[in-house]
Amino acid sequence: MQKQPLILITNDDGLNAQGISELTRCMQKLGQVIVVAPNGARSGSACSITPLVPVTLTLEREEENLIAYSCSGTPVDCVKLAFEKVVPREPNLVVSGINHGDNASISLHYSGTIGAVLEGCMKGVPSIGFSLRTHKQECDFQPYLETIEELASYVLKNGLPQGVCLNVNFPEVPVLKGLSVCRMSKGIWQSEWKETDTPGTYLLSGYYKNLEPDAADTDYWALDHGKTAVTPLSLDMTYYPYIETLKSLQK
Amino acid sequence: MQKQPLILITNDDGLNAQGISELTRCMQKLGQVIVVAPNGARSGSACSITPLVPVTLTLEREEENLIAYSCSGTPVDCVKLAFEKVVPREPNLVVSGINHGDNASISLHYSGTIGAVLEGCMKGVPSIGFSLRTHKQECDFQPYLETIEELASYVLKNGLPQGVCLNVNFPEVPVLKGLSVCRMSKGIWQSEWKETDTPGTYLLSGYYKNLEPDAADTDYWALDHGKTAVTPLSLDMTYYPYIETLKSLQK
Repeated sequence: MQKQPLILITNDDGLNAQGISELTRCMQKLGQVIVVAPNGARSGSACSITPLVPVTLTLEREEENLIAYSCSGTPVDCVKLAFEKVVPREPNLVVSGINHGDNASISLHYSGTIGAVLEGCMKGVPSIGFSLRTHKQECDFQPYLETIEELASYVLKNGLPQGVCLNVNFPEVPVLKGLSVCRMSKGIWQSEWKETDTPGTYLLSGYYKNLEPDAADTDYWALDHGKTAVTPLSLDMTYYPYIETLKSLQK
Repeated sequence: MQKQPLILITNDDGLNAQGISELTRCMQKLGQVIVVAPNGARSGSACSITPLVPVTLTLEREEENLIAYSCSGTPVDCVKLAFEKVVPREPNLVVSGINHGDNASISLHYSGTIGAVLEGCMKGVPSIGFSLRTHKQECDFQPYLETIEELASYVLKNGLPQGVCLNVNFPEVPVLKGLSVCRMSKGIWQSEWKETDTPGTYLLSGYYKNLEPDAADTDYWALDHGKTAVTPLSLDMTYYPYIETLKSLQK
């Protein structure tokens, strides 16, 4: 008898977030599920890890095809611990999310959701991050579950090239208007700090400015037009076209 | 009279680390220097940011061509705060380091040194990270200062393409054996957790396994052969070659 696929789930909003519950229910249709997620919110934790301080792993739930742990570390720590201390065999898929807030364009660099996806990819396992463009605490994830299941099934069946993972972002719409495979949009964060009542002390804030709002091949464009944005990401960040130019520096 | 170049410096080892002092002295030869660095070690902080909690900026030093602030946030917070609350005009260069420990291959994803470099790049300013393959607290940075000055001068003169920054790693050698422009080496981190005396509690550890030790075009090869490794990095992580394949998913 063929084994069920093993799916590892994490996020950066914490084990009790609504998004990870929905994602877990959705993944249970596709295989055996192990959840290792932070014990609280870790928004903006990117690929950060926890050096020097011990990290704790706590069993929270054990059912027939679901085991869930909380972890005191970052999303990347969760994936690292899961691979080395939790999973009985190599997972067939790592999924992260569903994040409350999109991780499109450059914002993905700050994202703990995507940090976990990159870590899964570093471990050589196909990995997908799911994020929803909203900041509401209570969201209706129903419109996205079918697409999530489709994409996870696709990746379970076809795999992904080594060193490549997927960043999937959803617009907040009652009915999705389609799905685009896209590139990261070019943009910048502006007016990022609000002064507080204490001098010299600031609160991170700001807004994203899309520098190419008319580029129909970008993730932001897809989201702005009610479509799911699927962006393949490369773990290898080398900018190859510039190597030749820089070779004048070689010695 | 032409203005001196304005150079913003940060790191992830904190304002009092030896590496940033050496880098500051080196950059003072090239222009006016502003340092905004964490008020303590932030190793492994990647591109993480500090949401929800206020971040404090404290003036630590003010001299003729050097102003230094400490910051309670991450290296990325330092760069964001510097751009919005400190610099009198857009910097001509952002440099980060000199990190104690290399940030070659996939390790760059975890690096606060590189997080700051990517942030400088997001702000549209040429940015370079410098790291030394060592974990000694006391290092001799002398063998690397000439190359650092050369590379910073090159970038001040020639700029870098938008969305491209440099990751520079040095081997620990008395005399550098040359400089290679390279790509990120493929590798994995293994045996990452040490059990502690408390059950269910682990300390991050591990070792890096180079999966292509003979590839002479990689950063690890350069370091292993006593050479400076210069790797151009792309802010855009889109893996373009796979977009066409995934288009079967579009709707």
